[in-house]
Amino acid sequence: MRIAFQGEPGAYSEAAALKFHGSADVMPNPSFEEVFAAIGTGKATHGILPVENSIGGSIHRNFDLLADHDFSIVGEVELLVEHCLLAYPGTPREALRRVYSHPQALAQCEQFLRAMPNIEIVATYDTAGSAKLIRDGALRDTGAIASARAAQIFSLEVLASGIQDFAANLTRFVIVARAAETDPEADKTTILFALPNQPGALFKALSVFALRDIDLTKLESRPIRGRPWEYMFYADLSVGRHDMRCSRALIHLAEFAKWLRTLGSYRRWKDT
Amino acid sequence: MRIAFQGEPGAYSEAAALKFHGSADVMPNPSFEEVFAAIGTGKATHGILPVENSIGGSIHRNFDLLADHDFSIVGEVELLVEHCLLAYPGTPREALRRVYSHPQALAQCEQFLRAMPNIEIVATYDTAGSAKLIRDGALRDTGAIASARAAQIFSLEVLASGIQDFAANLTRFVIVARAAETDPEADKTTILFALPNQPGALFKALSVFALRDIDLTKLESRPIRGRPWEYMFYADLSVGRHDMRCSRALIHLAEFAKWLRTLGSYRRWKDT
Repeated sequence: MRIAFQGEPGAYSEAAALKFHGSADVMPNPSFEEVFAAIGTGKATHGILPVENSIGGSIHRNFDLLADHDFSIVGEVELLVEHCLLAYPGTPREALRRVYSHPQALAQCEQFLRAMPNIEIVATYDTAGSAKLIRDGALRDTGAIASARAAQIFSLEVLASGIQDFAANLTRFVIVARAAETDPEADKTTILFALPNQPGALFKALSVFALRDIDLTKLESRPIRGRPWEYMFYADLSVGRHDMRCSRALIHLAEFAKWLRTLGSYRRWKDT
Repeated sequence: MRIAFQGEPGAYSEAAALKFHGSADVMPNPSFEEVFAAIGTGKATHGILPVENSIGGSIHRNFDLLADHDFSIVGEVELLVEHCLLAYPGTPREALRRVYSHPQALAQCEQFLRAMPNIEIVATYDTAGSAKLIRDGALRDTGAIASARAAQIFSLEVLASGIQDFAANLTRFVIVARAAETDPEADKTTILFALPNQPGALFKALSVFALRDIDLTKLESRPIRGRPWEYMFYADLSVGRHDMRCSRALIHLAEFAKWLRTLGSYRRWKDT
């Protein structure tokens, strides 16, 4: 198993990949697009994608990429994101003039950053990549917000840890593969569908699940490009595809949906 | 009427503000946060905020800021966003080595940019601000993606226009004020609510509208910060608050919602 992830070694996505499968090969990529390309060309058997953070919300780019590709979701992992302030060894916190990190991480540490006076905040492409920039440039006036693991990998010092505004900062990742996997123990199903532009269409769509006591744990709308104010919907159902209620609900939805695609049916992540 | 907007003069938000009220004073601000601050301190009577683009989807930052402030939505404007490639006067397209713009605008011109070989693409804070950078620095190797109006304001040349991937590239803006306005002709209402964490809760919420033939034109979920995987919902209803069906549906929703807030009831935008 070879799992492609976005970011440098030490990225949170890499940690999530290793949580999904401890002995997997992990493969860094500069962008989410390249994670999808690595699966498509077979350079990786799987890809891992952050889809939602408990503070920042959905990562819409990855929902759009899932819609654009014909891959399947085969698993899910949840990771506690514990941000640290990293610096070049021997640098005191007072010497820092700027802080690098990914925009999402900067947003998650807003209160901590506000308490650092006269700091320039610079958005970069990656948390671990910010740590790499400091190591490569031997930058003694710049800090990075990244994981403790990134500090180890890039030989930086941890000046502060757990600096996110909310202690419970969780990110949910999905594991994607070229072909669907059949897991009889699957207890979650992700679907993508579009509805006719009629009043009450969404209510009708949700009723096929509510009338069968299937819980929706997530509902997200995304624009259909080129058709202003028309949407497609992502839904996470708390039931596996092999459950009769699920298959019947999907047949019912297909009766009136414009189109319907099952992105995957997989086992819900459980911390052990 | 003084309307605060995010961006430099020539920004799309400024054009939307002038479309809402042709003789309004318009007031540039570096960030959305400062637009809200300008309304709060009374430096502006109104603020204008992009909330949704027909290609890129919702602008979640502004939904979160609406939730964090106690302001009201008093109007809505829709603007056709026509992107242009701007350059310093006398610069041929072949001389360009990089292109500046806001990440949303860059994403909306992806195909056009891909056809420009050996171009470095640089994300900036603002479309019109990118035009300003080129004028201020007399940059002869850099282009900006911005409006034709920004070209006029910053004395740049339009090398190409209508360069967005989809011709119908519409952005929806809301106009915000400190106090709610009572408009008897209001035909749209925006609400924000949270539901108890129970199976079928969202279905029940939508039923209060569906059972009264009230159409939802938009439903968006946002995380509740500090409570992982709990959400609040924004909904746009195609009916004014003074319509009995609307007031009854909101009373019905309040019976079981954890909380419910009406962000505003206002007249839907119509192009004339």
